[in-house]
Amino acid sequence: MYNPQLNERGELKHLLTTEGLPQRIIENILDTAASFVSVGERDVKKVPLLRGKSVFNLFFENSTRTRTTFEIAAKRLSADVLNLNINASSTSKGESLLDTIANLSAMQADMFVVRHASSGAPYLIAQHVAPHVSVINAGDGRHAHPTQGLLDMYTIRHFKKDFTKLRVAVVGDVLHSRVARSDIHALTTLGVPEVRVIGPRTLLPNGLEQLGVHVFHDMDEGLKGVDVIMMLRLQNERMQGALLPSAQEYFKNYGLTPERLALAAPDAIVMHPGPMNRGVEIDSTVADGAQSVILSQVTFGIAVRMAVMSICASH
Amino acid sequence: MYNPQLNERGELKHLLTTEGLPQRIIENILDTAASFVSVGERDVKKVPLLRGKSVFNLFFENSTRTRTTFEIAAKRLSADVLNLNINASSTSKGESLLDTIANLSAMQADMFVVRHASSGAPYLIAQHVAPHVSVINAGDGRHAHPTQGLLDMYTIRHFKKDFTKLRVAVVGDVLHSRVARSDIHALTTLGVPEVRVIGPRTLLPNGLEQLGVHVFHDMDEGLKGVDVIMMLRLQNERMQGALLPSAQEYFKNYGLTPERLALAAPDAIVMHPGPMNRGVEIDSTVADGAQSVILSQVTFGIAVRMAVMSICASH
Amino acid sequence: MYNPQLNERGELKHLLTTEGLPQRIIENILDTAASFVSVGERDVKKVPLLRGKSVFNLFFENSTRTRTTFEIAAKRLSADVLNLNINASSTSKGESLLDTIANLSAMQADMFVVRHASSGAPYLIAQHVAPHVSVINAGDGRHAHPTQGLLDMYTIRHFKKDFTKLRVAVVGDVLHSRVARSDIHALTTLGVPEVRVIGPRTLLPNGLEQLGVHVFHDMDEGLKGVDVIMMLRLQNERMQGALLPSAQEYFKNYGLTPERLALAAPDAIVMHPGPMNRGVEIDSTVADGAQSVILSQVTFGIAVRMAVMSICASH
Repeated sequence: MYNPQLNERGELKHLLTTEGLPQRIIENILDTAASFVSVGERDVKKVPLLRGKSVFNLFFENSTRTRTTFEIAAKRLSADVLNLNINASSTSKGESLLDTIANLSAMQADMFVVRHASSGAPYLIAQHVAPHVSVINAGDGRHAHPTQGLLDMYTIRHFKKDFTKLRVAVVGDVLHSRVARSDIHALTTLGVPEVRVIGPRTLLPNGLEQLGVHVFHDMDEGLKGVDVIMMLRLQNERMQGALLPSAQEYFKNYGLTPERLALAAPDAIVMHPGPMNRGVEIDSTVADGAQSVILSQVTFGIAVRMAVMSICASH
Repeated sequence: MYNPQLNERGELKHLLTTEGLPQRIIENILDTAASFVSVGERDVKKVPLLRGKSVFNLFFENSTRTRTTFEIAAKRLSADVLNLNINASSTSKGESLLDTIANLSAMQADMFVVRHASSGAPYLIAQHVAPHVSVINAGDGRHAHPTQGLLDMYTIRHFKKDFTKLRVAVVGDVLHSRVARSDIHALTTLGVPEVRVIGPRTLLPNGLEQLGVHVFHDMDEGLKGVDVIMMLRLQNERMQGALLPSAQEYFKNYGLTPERLALAAPDAIVMHPGPMNRGVEIDSTVADGAQSVILSQVTFGIAVRMAVMSICASH
Repeated sequence: MYNPQLNERGELKHLLTTEGLPQRIIENILDTAASFVSVGERDVKKVPLLRGKSVFNLFFENSTRTRTTFEIAAKRLSADVLNLNINASSTSKGESLLDTIANLSAMQADMFVVRHASSGAPYLIAQHVAPHVSVINAGDGRHAHPTQGLLDMYTIRHFKKDFTKLRVAVVGDVLHSRVARSDIHALTTLGVPEVRVIGPRTLLPNGLEQLGVHVFHDMDEGLKGVDVIMMLRLQNERMQGALLPSAQEYFKNYGLTPERLALAAPDAIVMHPGPMNRGVEIDSTVADGAQSVILSQVTFGIAVRMAVMSICASH
């Protein structure tokens, strides 16, 4: 089957989604990332792998946090990084997305890191770039956020070693979450035998069972015995909407408290993609507690993005 | 005659306009750019010519696209690049342009790349900087956009070799176009025997004939037998104004269609400074067609800017 | 006494304020800066002291000018610099300041340069960063702007050599000025025997005498015989407020004119932190005159920031 992320030799050329990403590719990314974790701990946090390459951060949707993680990763690989906030620019002059990409490609870009509010935009770009250019999806609409999915996998592997023995719960607003989608595909590919999804009916999409996950609306029941709890961010705009009665009510039913955490396995880890809404989806005691690996996710995230960039650039 | 762009030895110190720029200087820039085109094709797209130099992108008018081309050019020359969006800054605090420049000069800047809505602002700056500092005009009001003019000359030379045998048509909103002005001056200096300007009366300035160009209001007539067609961007704001009936009407009369292109020489090239309004000044078939060299302009633009920066910095 | 700026060996770890900063530390910063002044005059303005370090410019309050000085300083030290405009980012998503800092720290930041509208924000951050991270205060509320204070000391030492024989006048809106506070503390620590403060009652805070300064409301009297005149910027927003009758009235009473300057010592120097309001707090003849060292302050400011950054990073 044709996979737009791979080149004709089956190597990673673009990173667009974790869906359909072969297990050997995911594992190669995680193995490569392991070698970059130590780079971040060095005195001189730089390797010359992307020296003289031009990496364009194309953020059609503002996200300082995600843009920063890619910018650090690229700079630690010694790339030249160019940040383009596209809203304020050509798009407002009526230029089409593909004309913008064609132009930037003609400047001999080597890599585009793309954040876009429309699902599929990074695919469209990947189909139109020159053969030597790679596209990394940094979040497209509700569709995918594959580097977040991969850094989550790195974190789980770091703390739990073997995916094939785990029970993992993904909790919260799965309906609007590109992170949840990227996590579920990666967990399945890596052989996690039991993936649970926990949330209110209004925030879970239809058809989750077809992805091979178990759906729970009762949080206490869903958390029982799990090894990994992956909390999702609740978008502020949902809280005032018709989908939810209130933030307080949400916390009462789906907030991760110490009491609820005690229902999981004793050595369960707690994850969150950030930024957190303390007191809405997660209690501060848990967020800052001994089982939280939330800041490790951030640290590993730089290494995973370095791995993805260096692997794509090498093909 | 005193030329504010040249130093006392007649060498290029600032690039402010193509008007009055000696032919030998233009040709030196194009020759130097040729050597930088290959840098963009290398694995490591960097040369150390501006290492340890501080290049300030001073954009008093927002333009992500143009700023990006200068930023890439400077980074490929190994300069340290600082992007300053001046609207949001000192100017709003009431500091004068010259105080801003004096301050940045005191930070030991080596080069200012200036985009400003007021014609002449880069001249004013060039008159007040320290002797070791160069100023590159990245577009001032309706006045000049000399690096665009020079990259257009590079593109024409690349595809047509000999300027002294060409018929060139500049088409569209010449009245508001700094690009058109910079192109016409450079074409004349380089010995193009026949420069034509095509556009509606409302979008052509008075006095064009004094520049040595031939004026056409009928596009079909103007395109007959030309070797180079330089399309101009139609600013969106003109389309609703009193100067033009509508975008559709404009396209009917001055849009470059395959039928019109067929009136030019069979090997004529089509140019556009971007961003394009497809279906307004140019048909998509032509923009993406075999005679279009629009993306080559972009690629050569980086090399030309590297050339201008390295030549100015060396004097 | 515990000093949050120093590590357990009494070395500079964070720069938060000049208040309580030991004389030996200030002098070490000025001595180190002296060696960096020459770097700015070199052809290649770079030293590798911070190579592979990640410096984050965290500007919770917009200031292109100050951000630029730190960005240049860091780049001349060969650091990787990341600019974060935090208003537009996580804060708007409801993330707390400390969560933002924890996240960026987890990306293995080495240094935070912090500008914040709230006094004390850099202290809070310094208390929560990892042990290897340094925090530099780039201006917090009305509280402190220590690098400005230190570059002012560098400038005074450069032109006047010996602090222990000087009469220094600080003139203007001391009430709202973090610069004034940082200057007064540094001047006192360095042994300046006579620090005067000149301004209208409405723009001077209570308790100035406790800082060991002499208060003058009459400018002519206050300027008599001083060796250094440190003008302060008058914020535009004060001019329309209840604190001042008008800009003209202010200039009449507290503007530094050539006539008033003549009251000071014949070799007195004139300083201003910029951006200047010409014709409000200072006459253009004085600002551009032979006794003005305002642009030297800017030049020395880069060297002083390089010194602070390299000293903090080395501990």
